[in-house]
Amino acid sequence: MKFDPNWVTGFTDGEGTFYIGINRNDTMTVGYQVLPEFRIVQHKKDIKVLYALKTYFGVGVVRVNHDDRFELRIRAVKHLNNIIVPHFEKYELLTQKKFDFIKFKKVLQLMNENKHLTKEGLIEIIDISSQMNRKDKQKALEIKQIILG
Amino acid sequence: MKFDPNWVTGFTDGEGTFYIGINRNDTMTVGYQVLPEFRIVQHKKDIKVLYALKTYFGVGVVRVNHDDRFELRIRAVKHLNNIIVPHFEKYELLTQKKFDFIKFKKVLQLMNENKHLTKEGLIEIIDISSQMNRKDKQKALEIKQIILG
Repeated sequence: MKFDPNWVTGFTDGEGTFYIGINRNDTMTVGYQVLPEFRIVQHKKDIKVLYALKTYFGVGVVRVNHDDRFELRIRAVKHLNNIIVPHFEKYELLTQKKFDFIKFKKVLQLMNENKHLTKEGLIEIIDISSQMNRKDKQKALEIKQIILG
Repeated sequence: MKFDPNWVTGFTDGEGTFYIGINRNDTMTVGYQVLPEFRIVQHKKDIKVLYALKTYFGVGVVRVNHDDRFELRIRAVKHLNNIIVPHFEKYELLTQKKFDFIKFKKVLQLMNENKHLTKEGLIEIIDISSQMNRKDKQKALEIKQIILG
C-alpha cells in the first residue's frame, strides 16, 4: 500500500485524533504525567491500512482500541516532534481538526521546554487541552482543581 | 479551501459513503427505483469543508443529514458517471471502501445499460448492493423477495 502524503492528511482529517492524556503519576514532582498521543482508529477489517500507516510514518504501534476496532498509536514525544508534527505542518489539515493539531503542537513545545514538570506549565497544558475536541473535559478540569489545591 | 485530489480520496476513505437506495416507486414498470448516491457527512462545525468539496466536484447539494450533521450529496447519475467515478478511478481508495466503490460502479454501469428497468437487472442490482457496507441489508432482501413474487 503506497500513500500519497495528502491522502494521509485527508484520512487523518476524517479518522485521526490528537489527544493530550493527563494521568496521575506519583513519581512526577507535580503528581501528573502529560501523555500526548496521535492515533488513528479503524475497524479490524482495515487493520492493513493501520500497519501501512505505521510503515509510512516509520513509528507507532498497532493495538486494540476497543471491541473490533484497532488503532495506530504514536506516543513517543520524539516521534511526535520529529515525524507527526512535520507531516501535518507540510500537509495541512483542512477540517476543524487543524485547531486540535495547533494546540497539540503547543503542548509539545511546552514539553520540549520541560514546562510540563512545573505546576504552572501543567496548568497551562490542561487549559490548552481542555479546548481540544475531547470527551473527558470534565476530568481535565477536575485535575486542574486538584493541582490548584 | 484548496484540495489536493489525494486529500479528497483520503477524506472519503474516512468519511465517504457509496450507497444504492432502492425505493418503492409505482411509476416504474418494475415498481422500484434505484437511487445511487455518493455522500460525505460532517458535523456542522465542518460545513465549510462540504461546501468546498461541492465546489471541488462542481456538483452536489449540501443539506441536513440528521441533527447537527450535514452532508454533501451527489445523486445525479450523470454526475456520478462523469465526475465521481473518474475521480476515484484516478485517485484510488485504500480502505475496504474501495470494494463498495467497485460495486457502486457496477450498479451505475447496469443503469447506463438500462438494466435497472427490468426485473432481472433490478434483482442483480439488489444482489450487488446487498454486499455493500449498508445498514439496511434486510430491507434489500425483502424487496428482492417481493420482486421475485
